[in-house]
Amino acid sequence: MKFSQRLVEKVVPLWQKNHVHPFVQGIGDGTLEKEKFRFYMIQDYLFLIDYAKLFAIGAVKAKDLVTMGKFAALLDATINEEMELHRQYANRFGISLNELEAAKPSPTTLAYTHYMLHVSQNGTLAELVSSLLPCMWSYWEIGKALNEREGADEHEFYGEWIKMYASDDFGKLALWCIDLLDELAVGKSESELDTLEEIFLNTTRFEYMFWEMSYNEAMWPTDV
Amino acid sequence: MKFSQRLVEKVVPLWQKNHVHPFVQGIGDGTLEKEKFRFYMIQDYLFLIDYAKLFAIGAVKAKDLVTMGKFAALLDATINEEMELHRQYANRFGISLNELEAAKPSPTTLAYTHYMLHVSQNGTLAELVSSLLPCMWSYWEIGKALNEREGADEHEFYGEWIKMYASDDFGKLALWCIDLLDELAVGKSESELDTLEEIFLNTTRFEYMFWEMSYNEAMWPTDV
Amino acid sequence: MKFSQRLVEKVVPLWQKNHVHPFVQGIGDGTLEKEKFRFYMIQDYLFLIDYAKLFAIGAVKAKDLVTMGKFAALLDATINEEMELHRQYANRFGISLNELEAAKPSPTTLAYTHYMLHVSQNGTLAELVSSLLPCMWSYWEIGKALNEREGADEHEFYGEWIKMYASDDFGKLALWCIDLLDELAVGKSESELDTLEEIFLNTTRFEYMFWEMSYNEAMWPTDV
Amino acid sequence: MKFSQRLVEKVVPLWQKNHVHPFVQGIGDGTLEKEKFRFYMIQDYLFLIDYAKLFAIGAVKAKDLVTMGKFAALLDATINEEMELHRQYANRFGISLNELEAAKPSPTTLAYTHYMLHVSQNGTLAELVSSLLPCMWSYWEIGKALNEREGADEHEFYGEWIKMYASDDFGKLALWCIDLLDELAVGKSESELDTLEEIFLNTTRFEYMFWEMSYNEAMWPTDV
Repeated sequence: MKFSQRLVEKVVPLWQKNHVHPFVQGIGDGTLEKEKFRFYMIQDYLFLIDYAKLFAIGAVKAKDLVTMGKFAALLDATINEEMELHRQYANRFGISLNELEAAKPSPTTLAYTHYMLHVSQNGTLAELVSSLLPCMWSYWEIGKALNEREGADEHEFYGEWIKMYASDDFGKLALWCIDLLDELAVGKSESELDTLEEIFLNTTRFEYMFWEMSYNEAMWPTDV
Repeated sequence: MKFSQRLVEKVVPLWQKNHVHPFVQGIGDGTLEKEKFRFYMIQDYLFLIDYAKLFAIGAVKAKDLVTMGKFAALLDATINEEMELHRQYANRFGISLNELEAAKPSPTTLAYTHYMLHVSQNGTLAELVSSLLPCMWSYWEIGKALNEREGADEHEFYGEWIKMYASDDFGKLALWCIDLLDELAVGKSESELDTLEEIFLNTTRFEYMFWEMSYNEAMWPTDV
Repeated sequence: MKFSQRLVEKVVPLWQKNHVHPFVQGIGDGTLEKEKFRFYMIQDYLFLIDYAKLFAIGAVKAKDLVTMGKFAALLDATINEEMELHRQYANRFGISLNELEAAKPSPTTLAYTHYMLHVSQNGTLAELVSSLLPCMWSYWEIGKALNEREGADEHEFYGEWIKMYASDDFGKLALWCIDLLDELAVGKSESELDTLEEIFLNTTRFEYMFWEMSYNEAMWPTDV
Repeated sequence: MKFSQRLVEKVVPLWQKNHVHPFVQGIGDGTLEKEKFRFYMIQDYLFLIDYAKLFAIGAVKAKDLVTMGKFAALLDATINEEMELHRQYANRFGISLNELEAAKPSPTTLAYTHYMLHVSQNGTLAELVSSLLPCMWSYWEIGKALNEREGADEHEFYGEWIKMYASDDFGKLALWCIDLLDELAVGKSESELDTLEEIFLNTTRFEYMFWEMSYNEAMWPTDV
């Protein structure tokens, strides 16, 4: 059994919780309050900046030029192309560039990104990939599931989001990441695989918390 | 004005929220349910292991032998002495060594520690100290405040906790850290001070969330 | 005075030593033994892989999206375009892809790259830029100087090298780096500037040692 | 076969070169010029500061409290005790504290320490131990070999050095490190073991270069 198969079996119940989450359901049937999506977009923008840094660390940790080149291309595409798409999409919700640049991360955003950043900087390439994969993989799963709904991809506001994450391009990226983890897992001891699984589980859990945070528009509980 | 003075002015409202938090009040008047304190002790034990790693990173980032030596001594004392005191204290609550070793961090524990770990590994020594100071400083403030209550330090279970954090030794440690940050802040530009302040604020907020988590015995919201 | 101006004044004597070095002179007048250049190309190829990692770390350390995007683009261009040009150029000297991939770094290559890598990962963005700038800047200086010689840029083997480093594109890259360091140096304390200067001096010295190593085709003195 | 046994077989020829090196022979028969030893002591002092940082990184990378505690104790003992012994010993050679504090690392010292620092910060605990072990192990071997010479340990100046590295305490430390590496190597794939071996070989080679540097009192070849 491929290592990724072992991971899927572990996280299917969690993915199920994502799919039925009111935020995700609201994107799918178009009923999500725009204010909640607005909150999500801003936090997602901040998230993406740190997520891109994982690709940079991947380029540092890679043991061969092909993997290094792939991480380099991903980092470049994310920062120099994707971010602009996010800014344009955000603009359709009335989020200005100024607002994006002045925005502060919520505790869940900080928690999720800094967990991945420390695991990646301190650990192996396999640990890095384990930490960043759940975001990609579960977005692809959600994108594909929502895209099966009649007309969901044509929704005035949320259709674009669904098309992006259901796309073949996005799927190829997720598959590249899955294959890389499977390759890196070959020959690892059981205790190392347990570590990878724990990281994968933790970021899968943070992924769910990100939906929760977005639905509740949750910033710091301290009000300061 | 010393930089630490500027920080205090910012966080006094947050510290106030800590002092009146039912978990902290419950330690002070001895009414806290032992089950909640048990939860706290286990998470605090896991927290302390990562907190000690900040001292190790401090020894790597230090620019002079005196500061390096101080961080080295702190790391050694924490891992090779303090942890044993924590294990003994935990044992009084029926928490076995096995339970401590098998325990998993809550999302708030992971969030707080990994925020500090990444900030410290990626940033300057001043950023490291800004990230770890709120824990020390606010514990000292809480310790001193609770210790003023008649008999609080003699409580069968919580007295030991209050005495530890109200002690002169603990106060000296906090003061060393405060002085170090004040020294490191001298000559920094306003934009660098803003960064330090933001880090200090964020860990102060996580510190409050740690009380919340303990009171609610909050593990992952995913139940998995 | 701009900080970069202060640095230039310090390193002019060292740059002078580079310009009159027999390896550099040999490129300029076309008399360099091809065997020595072959040795250099292989070590330079290994050097470039680690040098590109500094761009990746720059993307992690950058405080704004513009700088992050620039480092991302540089990393991508280096790994996914420049390296191929190096492989093609090496091929003209009979260096196969296999030989490049099996090559081992010399002690000077390891020393130079790992000094930069540790300084960059452990320090600030300004420290990272101080460590990587001497390579770019001194190559540009050498390229321009050699390019003034009649016919040097048309030499069958070395002309390509001279044209690359005398080019406007390469000059723009060096200027971007110089400007970035000048910006980052603004508002820094004298003791921080001294640290930056020391890093800049050290990599300038390693740069000279790289010419020495290439001229002497120097691998480990242990013969093992 | 234990992994450490495999490593020994690789490096025996290199260790042999250390043993017959004029610097090491000069310590053994007492004929080494004091000026050369003086140079060595200053560089060794600078080396030790960075070497201690590897113990700090070891405490960060350790997966269990026992290993973390051992690295913490080593770091503390090195910085807060060993360094003072080195200062006292240096003082016997007329090296003042001021001279030690103002000293600059040679290129070989920088190369050796920064290679280990980057490998350790970027890699696994096994990679960290592979990088720091050759220093300890080869010093123990040299100490024991020189200590067999009649009267060598009673030499007015060099006897103390020989006794230190031939001592049971130092031997125990080296054995702990060897055992740790053997443990960490269990279950690793052949390609991971090759990486560990390459690191071990590289620092063994740098170790030899440190003797060469000391014998030649070699600072930068740039004279600046």
